[in-house]
Amino acid sequence: MPSPERPIYLDFNATTPVAAEVLEAMLPFLREEFGNPSSGHPYGRRAREAVERARAQVAALLGARAEEIFFTGSGTEANNLAIRGAAEARPERRHVLTSTVEHPATVQPCRYLERQGWAVSWTGVDSEGRVRVEEATAALREDTALVSLMHANNETGVLQPVAELAAQARRYGAWVHTDAAQSVGKVPVDVDRLGVDLLTVVGHKLYAPKGVGALYVRTGTPLRPFTLGGGQEHGLRPGTENVPYVVGLGAACELERGRLERESAALLELRERLWWRLQAEVPGMRLNGHLTERLPNTLNVRFPGARGSAVLAGAPEVAASTGSACHEGGESASAVLLAMGLPAEEALGAVRLTLGHGTTAEDVDAAATALAQAWRAVASPREP
Amino acid sequence: MPSPERPIYLDFNATTPVAAEVLEAMLPFLREEFGNPSSGHPYGRRAREAVERARAQVAALLGARAEEIFFTGSGTEANNLAIRGAAEARPERRHVLTSTVEHPATVQPCRYLERQGWAVSWTGVDSEGRVRVEEATAALREDTALVSLMHANNETGVLQPVAELAAQARRYGAWVHTDAAQSVGKVPVDVDRLGVDLLTVVGHKLYAPKGVGALYVRTGTPLRPFTLGGGQEHGLRPGTENVPYVVGLGAACELERGRLERESAALLELRERLWWRLQAEVPGMRLNGHLTERLPNTLNVRFPGARGSAVLAGAPEVAASTGSACHEGGESASAVLLAMGLPAEEALGAVRLTLGHGTTAEDVDAAATALAQAWRAVASPREP
Repeated sequence: MPSPERPIYLDFNATTPVAAEVLEAMLPFLREEFGNPSSGHPYGRRAREAVERARAQVAALLGARAEEIFFTGSGTEANNLAIRGAAEARPERRHVLTSTVEHPATVQPCRYLERQGWAVSWTGVDSEGRVRVEEATAALREDTALVSLMHANNETGVLQPVAELAAQARRYGAWVHTDAAQSVGKVPVDVDRLGVDLLTVVGHKLYAPKGVGALYVRTGTPLRPFTLGGGQEHGLRPGTENVPYVVGLGAACELERGRLERESAALLELRERLWWRLQAEVPGMRLNGHLTERLPNTLNVRFPGARGSAVLAGAPEVAASTGSACHEGGESASAVLLAMGLPAEEALGAVRLTLGHGTTAEDVDAAATALAQAWRAVASPREP
Repeated sequence: MPSPERPIYLDFNATTPVAAEVLEAMLPFLREEFGNPSSGHPYGRRAREAVERARAQVAALLGARAEEIFFTGSGTEANNLAIRGAAEARPERRHVLTSTVEHPATVQPCRYLERQGWAVSWTGVDSEGRVRVEEATAALREDTALVSLMHANNETGVLQPVAELAAQARRYGAWVHTDAAQSVGKVPVDVDRLGVDLLTVVGHKLYAPKGVGALYVRTGTPLRPFTLGGGQEHGLRPGTENVPYVVGLGAACELERGRLERESAALLELRERLWWRLQAEVPGMRLNGHLTERLPNTLNVRFPGARGSAVLAGAPEVAASTGSACHEGGESASAVLLAMGLPAEEALGAVRLTLGHGTTAEDVDAAATALAQAWRAVASPREP
């Protein structure tokens, strides 16, 4: 039952709870199996075996080989490793291509490369939030070291044409990275079908804990390490392995491999139910992002004549988010929605509702009612 | 009771188990309190509060202020942030001073700076493993950006004269970093008494889990971020906070604050007992490192006429380590012991025995007996 302390959680794209099965797999490694995988004695050996088992589980979900998976401490770190590691590995090339709707964990490393003298092309999106493959292809160069295009957008859930752009990038010898933080576990993700060389996985978007990620690195991609230190993860990501969370990420990947198809279908149905309810109660409500090329759990809407932040403030029964950022002096609109061509005032109407394991029809109905009621209380009468 | 699967654990410098009190503090954040600290709703707010509580707990152990603590994903990451972040913040300076006995997580970032054109002075140690302050001071320059000197060595436990060198470094306007991975929780560590600007803390050396660390950054030290992304940790270490482990690190610091003095005295006594037993049974056994300026839990010895790896292989009742590295083609001696002036053949006789919470007199006695027996079986008769 929702309560003021535990409102209906519709913020699964921000973070997921740890699945019970995942925590169960982790607990022995937070208790008696505490060895350092680098140690030669039995405590160490068992920890090493657990890490390697998890590596195979992550690989299996992605259609990769175990030795192509490198564990990191976060998705942000995996993106830094992919982007800066690719640039450092290919200094004779001087160009990187990315999009205008990436996560800060991609934007900031690309900006860093710009400050280091790299040319970065920021390819735009259409009004539905999708990169235009032709336009992006036209920006490819003979010296493109890397293309980094997210698989699914965190705010709108829009799926990007990664495979199509990767096919073009290959003609220029560019490596292709995709930040699949939001898509892994929500839709099928296969590194060969996507045609990518580098792919970021994030534990806490996938019912594993916050503080673990992985980077897929295709065999034959001589990435340079980003963090420097000992020889762990073949020197590509030094630091004592986070055995419990690595085990948890492996267990989460195995869990999703088993339930993804069924869960996705169920979430899609619930999301459509939420969407229809909201449309019925809020005339003029609009969808942000592509109608179908979208994660099954993600609904980003805009409320007419009201700020998303005001609607959420009026509906404390619902835990969700806006894509906007609050700061002293006010609120600024989501950069993703602005990149899609929305005027700032409309973009500020956005609310992101993201469903996940355990979301029920009752949750969805109660959330729609609460949000519509809050909207009616705050909507400006000037608007239709 | 020790068993082949669970030998006597004397490898606490490699990693510690998670304390029961620490796991208990963490569990709610692996279960119902799963919010993202960046979220404005109650799930997020409670996670944020937990992170800030932990920040104060870490600060309290170090004599620091809460806002000077920045959480990272590992000690390696904290060292990279300290060293590369300091260099990037002070590009007008071109010199870094470090020692010849640092951990790879310091050595490798310093080598990276060398490749980038920085001058790095590697100050040596005496036969007892301590940096000579006069010699190190003589290497300081007007353009020294950073001094990075570990607080306690991971292999020998030797405590370095950080405070003395820091006082000299201040005269040159150099920032001072110390990797306190091994000392925090084993001896009192106070950032003001040490006189450092940057200090690395590592969870898994301190009864918190593997995969979390912290960097102390003195107010007024405008360090640059290393990993780039969102605004977490005031932008200095972006990435969704690992709430459960951050809570665990806080709890571990609080635990150590309460028990450190008592535990250290008990471990010192057990370590001396182990040392006397071994000396009695192994004629010609020698200590590696300073007799007294050393962590109370650490005993690094060398066995005459035998390799440490052979002694450990012959004593499967004991889980400990050598400082040497195995690789195809053989075994290479510990760089730390070589830097102390030991010939390679002697350095290969080293075994590191490190005690911790739960180690008993029975453990120590049984370990001494097993190691001495193993030594007698493998020692070369040529040696005394």
